[in-house]
Amino acid sequence: MQNEAGGCPEPLGPGPTVADLTEAELIARIRQRLPPPPDWIVVGIGDDAAVVEPERNRLEVLSVDALVEGIHFDRAFTPPDAIGHRALAVNLSDLAAMGAAPRLALLSFALPPALACQDFDALVLGLAVLAGRHGVHVAGGNLTRSPGPLMVDVTVLGTVKRRQALTRGGARPGDELYVTGSIGAAAAGLQMLRDATSFTAGITETNGGHRSKRSPCPSLIAVSPAVEYCVRRYLYPEPRVRLGLLLARNRAASACMDLSDGLADGVRQIAEASGVGAVIDADALPIDTAARSWFNAQGGDTVDAVDIVSRAVRGGDDYELLFAVRPRLRSRLAAAGRHGEVPLTRIGVCTESRAVVLRRTAGGAVIEDPLPPGYSHFR
Amino acid sequence: MQNEAGGCPEPLGPGPTVADLTEAELIARIRQRLPPPPDWIVVGIGDDAAVVEPERNRLEVLSVDALVEGIHFDRAFTPPDAIGHRALAVNLSDLAAMGAAPRLALLSFALPPALACQDFDALVLGLAVLAGRHGVHVAGGNLTRSPGPLMVDVTVLGTVKRRQALTRGGARPGDELYVTGSIGAAAAGLQMLRDATSFTAGITETNGGHRSKRSPCPSLIAVSPAVEYCVRRYLYPEPRVRLGLLLARNRAASACMDLSDGLADGVRQIAEASGVGAVIDADALPIDTAARSWFNAQGGDTVDAVDIVSRAVRGGDDYELLFAVRPRLRSRLAAAGRHGEVPLTRIGVCTESRAVVLRRTAGGAVIEDPLPPGYSHFR
Repeated sequence: MQNEAGGCPEPLGPGPTVADLTEAELIARIRQRLPPPPDWIVVGIGDDAAVVEPERNRLEVLSVDALVEGIHFDRAFTPPDAIGHRALAVNLSDLAAMGAAPRLALLSFALPPALACQDFDALVLGLAVLAGRHGVHVAGGNLTRSPGPLMVDVTVLGTVKRRQALTRGGARPGDELYVTGSIGAAAAGLQMLRDATSFTAGITETNGGHRSKRSPCPSLIAVSPAVEYCVRRYLYPEPRVRLGLLLARNRAASACMDLSDGLADGVRQIAEASGVGAVIDADALPIDTAARSWFNAQGGDTVDAVDIVSRAVRGGDDYELLFAVRPRLRSRLAAAGRHGEVPLTRIGVCTESRAVVLRRTAGGAVIEDPLPPGYSHFR
Repeated sequence: MQNEAGGCPEPLGPGPTVADLTEAELIARIRQRLPPPPDWIVVGIGDDAAVVEPERNRLEVLSVDALVEGIHFDRAFTPPDAIGHRALAVNLSDLAAMGAAPRLALLSFALPPALACQDFDALVLGLAVLAGRHGVHVAGGNLTRSPGPLMVDVTVLGTVKRRQALTRGGARPGDELYVTGSIGAAAAGLQMLRDATSFTAGITETNGGHRSKRSPCPSLIAVSPAVEYCVRRYLYPEPRVRLGLLLARNRAASACMDLSDGLADGVRQIAEASGVGAVIDADALPIDTAARSWFNAQGGDTVDAVDIVSRAVRGGDDYELLFAVRPRLRSRLAAAGRHGEVPLTRIGVCTESRAVVLRRTAGGAVIEDPLPPGYSHFR
């Protein structure tokens, strides 16, 4: 397995690939890396479908999300355990955004025949470790070959009490907008990995070109704790499951979503679903310190505070939660915040006007611009 | 939309592709093709996750299955509505094999940017039509770009009463093995489509080579009802949902699975999971008449009955059910059979010996051979 910080072992000779194994052997390798199923999984991995006992007096929350090689990750700089971790994390983040407690996952992998068995194992282990931390059980799945990219599709099922599910649509004018943790570090980490990979590829091509293809190594650029931190935020995002649960249980939030596609996208989605507008205070945004320094260093003299805010709000992959809170429920929010193990920052307010605005001060003047657009998957 | 028999409209000029639309616009096109959600879907398409009210006093049955272009279908001869139909059908077949009533589906599509919008719409409609027939509601999903193949991943959730779930592991020596419908037609249909496509490609290449790439047309080979029937069995398989439900409800079957990977694979899987062997009677196999004639015509003088049986038991894509029945429960089976709208054929028996054997008679002698291996996804 790759170590957790994303360091790479030396490349091995050509070992066995998934094409050397049968489907049954691959399934056995997955089972070996999972804990024994709990008794509410009546029929687990190995039959036509999984059979589970539902949790009593709960609504069920279901989400599916796919990570596709070449779109969501680049194997040149994403260790396989990070692919497994992220594939589950993005789904747990969706459950967190609904205030749901995760329960089970189904895996659907499309595997290129040349995928090394050790990479397959590491991918499964990366997923299994995160699943273990959140009490998620893998109930079943499907394996198939892929003629091209590696694809990791994960379905998750969680539960939430009736009337506690958090949606995007409950915000009202006057509700305050909060974000968990910090934003921008994952976008910076991704850019660091891209830069380092092209840098390493440049070196190794003159040395025979072997390593750059088989095992480009993020640890080569781990020259500072700040870089390592941003890279880690990109590779191993922590879904805010606990805070989502707390917000749902004490009904502090009127609307919630996760920032998979960036803060700008998130604000727009909540505004649209709730029929409100929003004013975001650029100066209040919890832009990650390490990311801010790196954006600064990258841009040299040409980068200013506006550029940095723009990069931070447009960048995806943060998997923080964005949520709205009625001002009179601030004390509930404070209670959730005390147990949520992640800082909460008020970044703006919902408005009657439907505009979605980024407000900043410059030289004493207040300047309002439209919030930049978020990441688009298609266009 | 392609018509249901798989005929092709004339190729159009280059219309809009999915890359011309936003994710929200694509989601809107899906919603337009779905019926309004039932009231047990508390939060449907459009939020971070779906929220559903579970059915009372039922176990839940969950399955995921992916169709990958180049592995499970060839767009050269699979109309988009058939891709959508099959993506759901293979999952409903898994639920049928567990005796479960289908309830909801989640969709996860990885779309090549060049996919025509009309093909996207047809794919969704093919899926939606089958969903409507089985009372399945699409509760949510995920859309992403694919840098290569089209991938259609579907997760389904169904329900079954406690102690009624059918597994692969309940067969005992002496139990009789049955199969629904007929086998071999889908494998024949696939081969017909492949042959016709290379034939048409040969013609059109000399005519400018346009049609063979964009719109090869299965209807060109629909010269006989037998061919059309086999092609249809491949393109639009009918999952045996109703019979699976009946077998579960009156507890006629001791073990059950679907034949996605062929009869030979199915018999081995049930035998292994149940710790039994099996003797299959080659002469009793319900090999589809149209498929048998076609296999005969293809092989000329060289093909014999053994070859045909071998092709029929190894061929996948039939999506019939294979199940075991205790001899004393034959009357229950007959009751299920009367309402199941599909013929049932006894094809063999489970044995104490762990061998899995194909028995045939030739010139008065009884010959036993090992059952041929089934389709393997990896090796």
